[in-house]
Amino acid sequence: MKKIYDALIVGGGAAAMTAAIFTGRKKLSTLLLTIDIGGQNLLTEQEENYPGYLEKSGPNLMQNFKKQAEQFGAKIIFGKASRIEKPDGNFKITLSNGEEYVGKSVILAYGKVPRTLGAIGEDKFIGRGISTCANCDAPFFKNKTVVVVGAGNSAFEAAELLIKFAKKIYLIHRSEKFRADPITVDKVKKAKNVELILNTVVKEFKGKNKLESIIIQNTNTNETKEFKIDGVFLEIGYIVDTKWVEHLVKVNEIKEIVVNKLTETSTPGLFAAGDVTDSAYKQTITAAAEGATAGLTAYNYLAKKEGKTATRVDWD
Amino acid sequence: MKKIYDALIVGGGAAAMTAAIFTGRKKLSTLLLTIDIGGQNLLTEQEENYPGYLEKSGPNLMQNFKKQAEQFGAKIIFGKASRIEKPDGNFKITLSNGEEYVGKSVILAYGKVPRTLGAIGEDKFIGRGISTCANCDAPFFKNKTVVVVGAGNSAFEAAELLIKFAKKIYLIHRSEKFRADPITVDKVKKAKNVELILNTVVKEFKGKNKLESIIIQNTNTNETKEFKIDGVFLEIGYIVDTKWVEHLVKVNEIKEIVVNKLTETSTPGLFAAGDVTDSAYKQTITAAAEGATAGLTAYNYLAKKEGKTATRVDWD
Repeated sequence: MKKIYDALIVGGGAAAMTAAIFTGRKKLSTLLLTIDIGGQNLLTEQEENYPGYLEKSGPNLMQNFKKQAEQFGAKIIFGKASRIEKPDGNFKITLSNGEEYVGKSVILAYGKVPRTLGAIGEDKFIGRGISTCANCDAPFFKNKTVVVVGAGNSAFEAAELLIKFAKKIYLIHRSEKFRADPITVDKVKKAKNVELILNTVVKEFKGKNKLESIIIQNTNTNETKEFKIDGVFLEIGYIVDTKWVEHLVKVNEIKEIVVNKLTETSTPGLFAAGDVTDSAYKQTITAAAEGATAGLTAYNYLAKKEGKTATRVDWD
Repeated sequence: MKKIYDALIVGGGAAAMTAAIFTGRKKLSTLLLTIDIGGQNLLTEQEENYPGYLEKSGPNLMQNFKKQAEQFGAKIIFGKASRIEKPDGNFKITLSNGEEYVGKSVILAYGKVPRTLGAIGEDKFIGRGISTCANCDAPFFKNKTVVVVGAGNSAFEAAELLIKFAKKIYLIHRSEKFRADPITVDKVKKAKNVELILNTVVKEFKGKNKLESIIIQNTNTNETKEFKIDGVFLEIGYIVDTKWVEHLVKVNEIKEIVVNKLTETSTPGLFAAGDVTDSAYKQTITAAAEGATAGLTAYNYLAKKEGKTATRVDWD
């Protein structure tokens, strides 16, 4: 018969790993289903505000998280969770490769994904000229011509970073208003190799094997124009992919999973933590704490189901 | 004129230090008022479940927290906050030595204190034979006769620890029921140098300069008895000292400060985080996250007051 885990955790970032540390310490058999180890922290070498951690490397920090999760018994399987069902008291999660896993409780902690434009050719060139992570990919565009799409802090910070690498940077934005902090906008505007293209959207991505040019359109005049570039950085925020779980959880207007203080969703036994939730602040420290809370609440959920008294944990 | 801080933080543990890290990074002038650096983490050398931290020493972990808080500009003053007023838009906090500090916002993050019995002579002998921290003081009682008062996990864990040090351990408990995990109870019961004294309370602590004996009373027969001991460990849980703030905050039935997901109390501008709050789980990681949330919410509170738009922080 198929193994039934006490806790299935979907995700591999701060929230997921911490959930695994806490379920593991409670001796719950724990399986993580994830596409990566580290989540958003893979993208930062300047993790300055995780308390107690002075080294700053996001990826290294997440390796520490993983070490602890495994030390307390968590098992990790790589794959993308794409279906979740609750046929009986237990949950069944199916990966995109068809593998199925069963758990008595589930913690959704798989974070957010970069938003894309939905423009023609976009899917084809992601990773082949289109990047959603300037921090990761900027160094590959030394002396190249690049485009940054967006107008928030992440877009301007991407542009600021690219100033040091690229020959020329076009910042394309659909309106004339910027949401970024004025101090960052000023810095970027002053750079000699930056040009702003406003009231403009990207309509199409073109190229053979890799991205070679884009077609842009002025939103006032509808005029289109093609121009050659080496790379495009999409810095238009993140979205939470909740389509596959919406039959079991309540989501808010921006599709984040609604949880209470105990990380409970609208389905008993199904918990959520970190960037997938409607928590106010998306920090490593808050994600980790939500993971810890989810782990302990899952433990209490199972204890109660098995007739034990759920306790206020570690508070005597 | 007196300096007005953007944020006054009461406390020096995980929640307080993290609050200071986050207010500091938002360039809020920040002052911590605290009686110690580290709070509950001063008491553990086995901090196994703080994610990302492999070294395990609680006090060292808290030194890292402090380093970061100071790096982002937080100032620390030692003292016990004993009065809080909101005479106008700002808060005034008075220390027990009479010093006064003024802040536009306040974060209460001063944790919990060990519960005491209220028995005769108790105050006199705390630190002179009476300990509220077996983890700290057990080694001082090598080959001595000691008493542990309590019946929860912390009492039985204290007894378990003392087995290695003390010659003889009496565990005194007012009833016959134990709240501790059965596995720990069994271990303690099996030890040859442990004796349980049930249905019994401690009425009085006696001695000259240091504790020499206690008077105990059987709760069934009311019979009293004096016996010589070298030390007493009070392991009867913790309480939150909220008397001095109850005119400004709502508290629950066990006197914890009631907060919402954003760490807001019932008074605008007054926030609370960590063990002083009604949060479900009292962990270093959850306390730290509540501190981070309090810091960011305090920032948003001040931004809004000053006519700026409060933003969803670091999420673009």
